[in-house]
Amino acid sequence: MLYAVTEERIRVRYGETDQMGHAYYANYLFWFEQARGAWCRDRGFTYKSLEDRGVLLPVVEAHLRYKGEVRYDDWIVVRVHVSEIKRTAMKFEYEVVSESSGMVVTEGYTWHVVMDPVARKAVAIPSFMRDLLERDPEEHVTVE
Amino acid sequence: MLYAVTEERIRVRYGETDQMGHAYYANYLFWFEQARGAWCRDRGFTYKSLEDRGVLLPVVEAHLRYKGEVRYDDWIVVRVHVSEIKRTAMKFEYEVVSESSGMVVTEGYTWHVVMDPVARKAVAIPSFMRDLLERDPEEHVTVE
Amino acid sequence: MLYAVTEERIRVRYGETDQMGHAYYANYLFWFEQARGAWCRDRGFTYKSLEDRGVLLPVVEAHLRYKGEVRYDDWIVVRVHVSEIKRTAMKFEYEVVSESSGMVVTEGYTWHVVMDPVARKAVAIPSFMRDLLERDPEEHVTVE
Amino acid sequence: MLYAVTEERIRVRYGETDQMGHAYYANYLFWFEQARGAWCRDRGFTYKSLEDRGVLLPVVEAHLRYKGEVRYDDWIVVRVHVSEIKRTAMKFEYEVVSESSGMVVTEGYTWHVVMDPVARKAVAIPSFMRDLLERDPEEHVTVE
Repeated sequence: MLYAVTEERIRVRYGETDQMGHAYYANYLFWFEQARGAWCRDRGFTYKSLEDRGVLLPVVEAHLRYKGEVRYDDWIVVRVHVSEIKRTAMKFEYEVVSESSGMVVTEGYTWHVVMDPVARKAVAIPSFMRDLLERDPEEHVTVE
Repeated sequence: MLYAVTEERIRVRYGETDQMGHAYYANYLFWFEQARGAWCRDRGFTYKSLEDRGVLLPVVEAHLRYKGEVRYDDWIVVRVHVSEIKRTAMKFEYEVVSESSGMVVTEGYTWHVVMDPVARKAVAIPSFMRDLLERDPEEHVTVE
Repeated sequence: MLYAVTEERIRVRYGETDQMGHAYYANYLFWFEQARGAWCRDRGFTYKSLEDRGVLLPVVEAHLRYKGEVRYDDWIVVRVHVSEIKRTAMKFEYEVVSESSGMVVTEGYTWHVVMDPVARKAVAIPSFMRDLLERDPEEHVTVE
Repeated sequence: MLYAVTEERIRVRYGETDQMGHAYYANYLFWFEQARGAWCRDRGFTYKSLEDRGVLLPVVEAHLRYKGEVRYDDWIVVRVHVSEIKRTAMKFEYEVVSESSGMVVTEGYTWHVVMDPVARKAVAIPSFMRDLLERDPEEHVTVE
């Protein structure tokens, strides 16, 4: 149920390129974050509203495998889904697809912990949030 | 007395270039900010300590004139000084000098207001801050 | 004829905020650039295709007036139009509108020169490009 | 012989923070890159000079483990060393140390391939570059 995929289309900015002529490697983490925001909205809430309810989701681990290039003005699609949920942490997986070639140009994952913003330490995922996480928008594709 | 100049050396990052082969135009605003931080420390305080005392200095205006290029791995020197102080606002002026050529490659200025973080509106520059602003580190060059 | 406005919607990324809680001041220059790209496409070409034809448009001047805040997850609309064309240079003007409030939160302009990428110096705007610039997509609003 | 460590001190910029109050997760990849540049210089060459000789080193994999926070104006030290060299690829490992606490706040690694800029495919590490990689600056600490 957790595995429905959200897709976020992003066009690569000129300022996201570097002198090698393609997107600088750090920008993928911005795009992953944008896709996580879309993932939340697909499930009826916003990441902003989580923070307003006292739930921060700082990243504790990130991994990226760069397999191809993306260039200025390319459309990319970031496909994101939650692949694992633990007591205090959750994992998102990502594929960045180049729209022109249809190829997966980058893959990655991030782990996030649920953090109490006052105590600034990890806490169990609140039940209201578990309910949100498990919402499965019918209109979205599901990974096998 | 306000015009003593602080100089901040910065080396251009690869990720700050774009596919045109030189530094992307937005990065100068990051460098200006870094130079303002150095400017504060030269006067015995930190921008962080201002925020801790309830003084935010959001920017209300920025201007940049790009006259030459800077490239990956170049050393630049950002020369910054306060050029004007009003009741609730202050102006910083900047020159970005390419260390290899000695040329001023970019000039600019920023206006900042003193903002109360709770009311989120402009307030008069506190007297403790005026004292800090007027500190003139003898060791620094002065613009004519 | 030059003044038709292109509008580009952008959602503010988490990584574009700073610890003051709103968008960091340099990010507006990324958004302006994204809007210029949309402006080109509205006229039937891409900025990429200009570069492919040997026309670079480096910025020589930028100005921003910050009048309000934008925050994480806000939708903004960047309204851009060309307001002046000289022999070797052109000026874009921008308004950033907060979609929720309808307020213009930031205004600005940028000047660009037409640069030959080999000689790396300013050249007259090529005639093919003048034709492109003057295309006025009927579907777009026009500033008075 | 490959394992001598280079240390690069970096001060965290305001624009590198986000509304959570600490450095945004993508910025570590900029800092890793800055440290790789310093690593090259420690061995008597620059990454720029490699590119000039027709050697690009695009990243093919990156991993980050975030263990603590860094904040605006903090000094961090990025400790970088090469930990593995294959025929066409090399691995850098990183530790980001908070200077005030002495704690390792982030660890990571990146894999890079040697790419021919014309053919845009991986090639064997050139012998001149192997010699450079193996230079061990005596003045630097060595990992056990």
